Amino acid sequence: MEEKKVHDVAVVGCGPAGLSAAINAAIRKKDIVILGSEFCSPKLHRAPRIDNYLGLPGVSGEELRQAALKHVAQFGLEVRPARVETIIPLDDRFQLLTRTEVYEAKTVILATGVVEVATLPGEEEFLGRGVSYCATCDGPLFSGQPVAVISDLGEGEEEANYLAGIASQVYYIPLYSASYKLNPKVTVLQARPRAIHGLTGVEGLVLADGTKLDVTGVFIIREATNPDRLVPGLDMRGTAIAVDREQRTNIPGLFAAGDCTGRPYQLAKAVGEGQVAALSAVRYLDQLR
Amino acid sequence: MEEKKVHDVAVVGCGPAGLSAAINAAIRKKDIVILGSEFCSPKLHRAPRIDNYLGLPGVSGEELRQAALKHVAQFGLEVRPARVETIIPLDDRFQLLTRTEVYEAKTVILATGVVEVATLPGEEEFLGRGVSYCATCDGPLFSGQPVAVISDLGEGEEEANYLAGIASQVYYIPLYSASYKLNPKVTVLQARPRAIHGLTGVEGLVLADGTKLDVTGVFIIREATNPDRLVPGLDMRGTAIAVDREQRTNIPGLFAAGDCTGRPYQLAKAVGEGQVAALSAVRYLDQLR
Repeated sequence: MEEKKVHDVAVVGCGPAGLSAAINAAIRKKDIVILGSEFCSPKLHRAPRIDNYLGLPGVSGEELRQAALKHVAQFGLEVRPARVETIIPLDDRFQLLTRTEVYEAKTVILATGVVEVATLPGEEEFLGRGVSYCATCDGPLFSGQPVAVISDLGEGEEEANYLAGIASQVYYIPLYSASYKLNPKVTVLQARPRAIHGLTGVEGLVLADGTKLDVTGVFIIREATNPDRLVPGLDMRGTAIAVDREQRTNIPGLFAAGDCTGRPYQLAKAVGEGQVAALSAVRYLDQLR
Repeated sequence: MEEKKVHDVAVVGCGPAGLSAAINAAIRKKDIVILGSEFCSPKLHRAPRIDNYLGLPGVSGEELRQAALKHVAQFGLEVRPARVETIIPLDDRFQLLTRTEVYEAKTVILATGVVEVATLPGEEEFLGRGVSYCATCDGPLFSGQPVAVISDLGEGEEEANYLAGIASQVYYIPLYSASYKLNPKVTVLQARPRAIHGLTGVEGLVLADGTKLDVTGVFIIREATNPDRLVPGLDMRGTAIAVDREQRTNIPGLFAAGDCTGRPYQLAKAVGEGQVAALSAVRYLDQLR
């Protein structure tokens, strides 16, 4: 196995805060990996007109999104499409796990945006006791048992296909429209989930029409993951990551910027925080030596 | 005397933080006055190339300064040249005093930039006991006594001329080059001040060449005023104004943004903080009702 490259900075997210962090760390000659979605900031893309980003009056969100990506490209950086599922703080670095890859970095800047996720009744209660966000991680625990996969995005199909080789039965509940590429053993249900039921663990998934699926596992695949699920032990302030004025979290070497640190959910705030987070990460790296 | 207009927001300073605050408060339909120097941000103006303001790679400082001023003008706002000397928090509003005017506002955003002022030995020690930053305020205390005026800028000439009608002797020590417009009673000294001497109060000003001027008052006129001198009772953290993540200072209704809140002294950070300060001021105003 080849030795893992340990980056100086891993930026998780590629909206304005993440890209601002990336260019600021790049100016300081750090080695950076940007892990984001292919589209980066759907919210920015949809903004018809932005009037409060100083120096660029009346710019459209899409113009600014393009300008930001081009700006990053000028530093030789590009966004690597990767949905980070777990970040593990080790002694001298962090491991960032996606479904298929492991990245390593000495510092991490979270710029994951706002998570406005309506959790399903029972989801929090049964997390780790039948509810999971990662088939690759937890799938083997459900060998020979019936499971359901609820997914906001196409990636869930691969999770379902993986589970088809393990579970006795796989229900796939897509919350998006597309043509599905699924193993014939997977049953697609066009339905809305209503609640997860059980006593000490998951015993069933109730759908909006009242149907109850007898499953012992429910896998939920969403675009966004709540930051404290992403990083075990991360301090939150309500739904926002708790940071100080240097954008430091409670975990040394881990910084956060932009909407994920709380209101106001605004472009200039995100860009400014990305810059501060990057410079704090650079200072942290310099002190490691 | 006509009734004073009470603005919603007074922005003190017109660098990137101040102008970002102004446009963000303007979008929320607040009545704003921007009090600044004619040039706003000499530091921005001198920056040959800025590469870390997301979306505008390679912009020159002067281009960005022009773009920012134009941006503000699009909201019908302009910078009023005014050097604020003291800010007095009253029960329901603030009074902002310049040498010749009084402005009033329900909230104040300080965006005064970095103050890198080398204070003169003895200056802090004798402040209020012979040392003053405002002839209009303290001049009458020196009736019939000899005083010196040390000035970084032409404005000091008016201070000296005012003192000429009060003091027994006025030495004027300009730390700039220009043709001076001074009352014939004022003595110009081309010299560098070295220290202020005295026991319980000012007894003399020593110059770099060793000369001692026998004065009981020393007036110091500088472009920048330390923020805690500007606002009595303002909490500082070293030389920076202490603010929380909402850019609030310890004084209700008073916010601060940009370089004056501490490092990093960077454009994006200033613009982001200006935005947050403005939105916090707007929220404060909404709660007043």
